[in-house]
Formats: sequence, structure tokens, C-alpha cells
Amino acid sequence: MRAVVLRGETLGVEDVAEPEPGLGQVLLETIACGICGSDLHCARHARTFTETARATGMTIFDFDPDRPLVMGHEFSGRLIGAGPDVDLAALGVDLGDAVVAHPVVRTTDGMRSVGYSNAHPGGYAQRLVVDATGVLRVPDGCDPVHAALTEPLAVGLHAVNATSAERRGSAIVIGCGPVGLAVVAALRLRGVPLVVAADFSPTRRRLAAELGAHVVVDPADGDAVTAWRDHGGRGPAVLVEAVGVPGMIDRLVRSAPRRSEITVAGVCMETDRFEPLIAISKELSIRFVLGWSPAEFAASLEGIATGMIDVAPLITGTVDLHGTPGAFTTLDRPDDHAKILVRPNGA
Amino acid sequence: MRAVVLRGETLGVEDVAEPEPGLGQVLLETIACGICGSDLHCARHARTFTETARATGMTIFDFDPDRPLVMGHEFSGRLIGAGPDVDLAALGVDLGDAVVAHPVVRTTDGMRSVGYSNAHPGGYAQRLVVDATGVLRVPDGCDPVHAALTEPLAVGLHAVNATSAERRGSAIVIGCGPVGLAVVAALRLRGVPLVVAADFSPTRRRLAAELGAHVVVDPADGDAVTAWRDHGGRGPAVLVEAVGVPGMIDRLVRSAPRRSEITVAGVCMETDRFEPLIAISKELSIRFVLGWSPAEFAASLEGIATGMIDVAPLITGTVDLHGTPGAFTTLDRPDDHAKILVRPNGA
Repeated sequence: MRAVVLRGETLGVEDVAEPEPGLGQVLLETIACGICGSDLHCARHARTFTETARATGMTIFDFDPDRPLVMGHEFSGRLIGAGPDVDLAALGVDLGDAVVAHPVVRTTDGMRSVGYSNAHPGGYAQRLVVDATGVLRVPDGCDPVHAALTEPLAVGLHAVNATSAERRGSAIVIGCGPVGLAVVAALRLRGVPLVVAADFSPTRRRLAAELGAHVVVDPADGDAVTAWRDHGGRGPAVLVEAVGVPGMIDRLVRSAPRRSEITVAGVCMETDRFEPLIAISKELSIRFVLGWSPAEFAASLEGIATGMIDVAPLITGTVDLHGTPGAFTTLDRPDDHAKILVRPNGA
Repeated sequence: MRAVVLRGETLGVEDVAEPEPGLGQVLLETIACGICGSDLHCARHARTFTETARATGMTIFDFDPDRPLVMGHEFSGRLIGAGPDVDLAALGVDLGDAVVAHPVVRTTDGMRSVGYSNAHPGGYAQRLVVDATGVLRVPDGCDPVHAALTEPLAVGLHAVNATSAERRGSAIVIGCGPVGLAVVAALRLRGVPLVVAADFSPTRRRLAAELGAHVVVDPADGDAVTAWRDHGGRGPAVLVEAVGVPGMIDRLVRSAPRRSEITVAGVCMETDRFEPLIAISKELSIRFVLGWSPAEFAASLEGIATGMIDVAPLITGTVDLHGTPGAFTTLDRPDDHAKILVRPNGA
């Protein structure tokens, strides 16, 4: 089959071995696969990526950066095969169904990430194998291409579930890249009555508004906390950091009202600095989040299928396998993009 | 009256004006006043202290570092006077009672800290004025000298109340200075079944054990998280940082188990660094705490009075006003000390 293969820092389309579903596994034909910020990072810094994964005990992301890698963990697909022991009926799916799936496989060495494993190609390939237990049928009437957004939107839902946004009735989202936009969508899914979103990019601010942000702020014009106050925000604030560059936590610590909570959903890969005394003086709390639970993954698909989350505005581009390396370059300056989908088997 | 006055970086005993209780205020004759780490810091870096207070909106600590200052906010005293409108009976106290009090006065400019205000001398003076509403009678049978520990123990209780230690059934306290020891005492007051405390000083480890730590660890010998696991600790941990120097948060982020919570009670006055990616990978939460609530202040006095907290081991020295500057020097190398009390009117 054809796949986009990462060798060193170079992406190229190659023929790779057809995956075979083993015990407990199913085979999917990829419908669509989103390009994630982690993939962009991995394409540039694969060694750092695996070293950090090892250092923090995340063996699920352990791969050999000197060997070829097929990334892609935000996918939907058509169920076209299953391991000999898999009872599809018991899983509520059937051959031919459009499905989404947790991007993981169970191995004798433990769980491995599909898309960050040399042995388990991800969604930048025509077909892929995943663990059968993480497969969910895409409900009738839901576009399977839209369903590829299940994973990134689950990340947003997971971040929101870690906050007090529902109880407090408002939230401030800093950064409207794919993570920030997923957070905005999840806040609206949860019915939070005041969502303020900030980004320097007009395109991204427009996307945030389309996904349901009540107030959008250009940080060049003013502070998001001030805008929140101007729209009735009072007392401690719920802030979500979705930029992921050094200095952002410090900025939020400085701008947050007393007793605010800062949920860090942006993945900052470098050493960061801040002033503990300011955080102490304000009695802030900072919560770091990653990933999602199976329940959040399912709730995300449900939100897309019911139309509670309108994912269409998030999809700002679609490419085939040959267009994928170029899409990575485009996303290095992502101001006008949210999610670009790869369609390895064509539209 | 006599008081220890801070001028620049120099402490000396001087005659200062007798304080007079105004509307809503009471006059105390100081029985005992603890020397706090914040006082040590203020004596060295008064300008930074006030600048930070201003920058973080803590106007309660706003004073002029170029004018004389009488510190001391951890005091007990004898009630010897009251403003003309104060109804002592309604407050449950009478002239002659031993009392403790919130170290604050209400002014036309808002609340001011007694002990960090040029106009309102603290407990390093023979007499002081406080707001009447924060006064609590020291219960019969409770040594009023011990009651001077109410404020610092309330700080420990406030930190513990911010944690999940009761629900999780264990906690790890890093640093056994006065703050860490107060946290240990509060954890025992709350009945937490496994308290692990770490400090390089053998004296402080002994004090932690006397206050109820089940396990004490010398960081030179091994890691506190490992010791916690060796004593049955499982899953996410409740860690309390009570050292307050740069690098401690980073160390705890690295050693904490997944999904642990780190409560920062140590006051780090410098820029700090850490690796967000490790905190993200482990989904840690970091909560910064300061001070106490009136309920926690009252619960702290109650804990001392009932003997649930045995404060005697915490008092490692007592000085008069003339001995106070020397006590500040001693506490700059505090390895063998917890709390030194100042007794401005003699024992």
C-alpha cells in the first residue's frame, strides 16, 4: 500500500507492507486523517520526541527515530477486516462500517500508539490496524470525513472536563489553533455561557466565533482577561492555555485574577520560566492535561454526529498522500489554517 | 513603648509611639510573637517585598521601605484596651483575656497588615492594635505562649485543605521548616493515615516525627516518593512543596507519579524554571497557596488548645526584644531551628 513515510526529517510517499490484523485487532481502510501539531513536531524533532516520551514513562510513544515511521492518529476509516478472534457483533460494528478508533494497538510489550510506532503505521497510509476494543461506529447521517475530528475534539473535551468552566459559567481560551478551537467547541458542547477566545490570526478568531466563542480578542488590541471582565466575567477565571510556547504560562500567571485556574492544553516542548511568587500571591492553580479518556472519545464522536459540534469550519484543507509533505510545510506557518485532512484513498 | 524596628536592613531596639485603639480596634499587650520566614525575607529585601506586593495587587502588604517598620504577625497577647465603639462581650472576650488575632487593621485605604505597615506596629513591640473582629480568646488551659503558633499553623492547615490528602489517605511533605512542619501537624490534625516528610536536617526530621510524620526521609539518602511507595503509597500522590527555592517545583514535577497534585506552600522569591512537557505528560496539577481563612485560623487555635497539635516541639528558641536581631541572624542558617518566639514584655 501507499503511505507517507518519515525518514529523518523528510516526508515522502512510498510503498510499505500491507498491515494484517492480528488477534484482537481490526483492519481499516483510511477515510481521512488529520495532521496534528504533534506530527509537525515529530517530523522536525523525532529524536527529542521519543527521548521525552521515554523520560516521562510514556512507552506508548516509544519508537526508533532512525527507522521509517508512518504517522497519523486522528483518523476515520472503513472496517475491512478483523483478527480471527474478533467478535464484531459484540463490538457493535460490521464489515463495511465507517468507524473511528483509539489510535492504539496492544502488543506483548504493552500498548503502542498507532502513528508513533515503527511497526504500526498510522492514518497517513491507505490502511491501518488498530485494537478492536477502541472501535466506534460512525452513526448514520454523520459524514465519516467529519468523524476524523473525533480525536482532536476529544482532546478539547478532556481539557474542558478538567476545568471548572461549567460551574463558573465562563472560560477564556488563549490560542485558537486546533487545540484551542477544540476547547472552544467543547466549551459550547458543555453549554458554558461565556467563552472568550484570543488569537493573533483573524482567520482563527473567525473560526473560534463559528465554533461558538461569544467574544474573540486580538491580543494585539487588548488583554483577554479584560475582555472577559468587560463581558461580565467576575471573580476567579477559568483560563485554558492552548498556545504551547515558552512564556505563555508566565503571561497567564500575571494576567489571571486571584484564585483563577489555568489549564495547560498547549504542549510546550521547551524549558519554561515563571514567577512562583505571583502564582502564590494569587493562589492560582495550574493543571496540565493530555489526551482523553475512552468516554471523552465517545462523547466527542457523539457531539460531531448530533451536530452539537459543527466541525466543518475546522477543516481548512484536504490533501492526498502526495500533498501531505506540502501540507506539513503549510502548517509550519499555520495562521490561516486549523485542520488539514489527509485522504490516502482519495476523496 | 519598646520595639524592634527595621530601618533599611538593620534591626534595632527603639522607643516608638504607644499605639491607641481606634474605632473597631483593640489594644493587646504582646505575650509572644513568632519570627516568620517572610520577616527574614523582608528584613533583607524590603523593597522587593513591597514591589511584589504591589505588582500582585496585595495592597495589604503595601508599606514604605524607606520608613521604619515594626514587624511581627504571629502573636498572642493580653487584651488591655478597646476602641470606644467596641462591644467586647459581643466578641466573646474581656479585658485581661489572653487572645490571638488576625494580624490586620481596617483603614480608610482598605485592610493593612499588622507587622507589614509603617503605621501599624506588629508583635515585635510591647503593645499592638488590631481589628476587633479578628480577635479570639485563648481557651482556658491553653498556654498563651503556645497560642502564638496559631497563625503559622493556620498556614499549614490552609495548605492541607487545598489538597486531596484526606481523600487519598497520604501526603508527602518536602521541607520541614516552619511551613513544612505546620503542614505535617495539619495533616495529622486531619487524620491523614500516611504522612511522609523529607528534610536534610536531622533536627527538622526529628521535629517532623514528633509532630506526627509517620515516615521521615533524608533526601541525601533517597527520594521521598520512593519512601512513600515503600510504605504503601500507590497511584497519584499528594505532594506539598515547603522549601521555596528555585528548582524545587521542577524536582517535584520530575519525581511525582502520574496525575499527582503538587501544592506549593513554600514561598520562592525568584524566577523559577520547569519542563512543561513532563508536567503535561503526567497530567500533574500544581496549586499555589498562601495565608488562611478565618475558619482555618480558628481551627488552628482549637487544634492547639485541645492538644491535637502539640506545638511545644516547634518552639526551638525564645528571645526578648534585644535578642531579636540575633535571632534573625540565627535563622539565616535555620537547620536546627523551627520557630523562635519574641517575648517583648519578658517571660
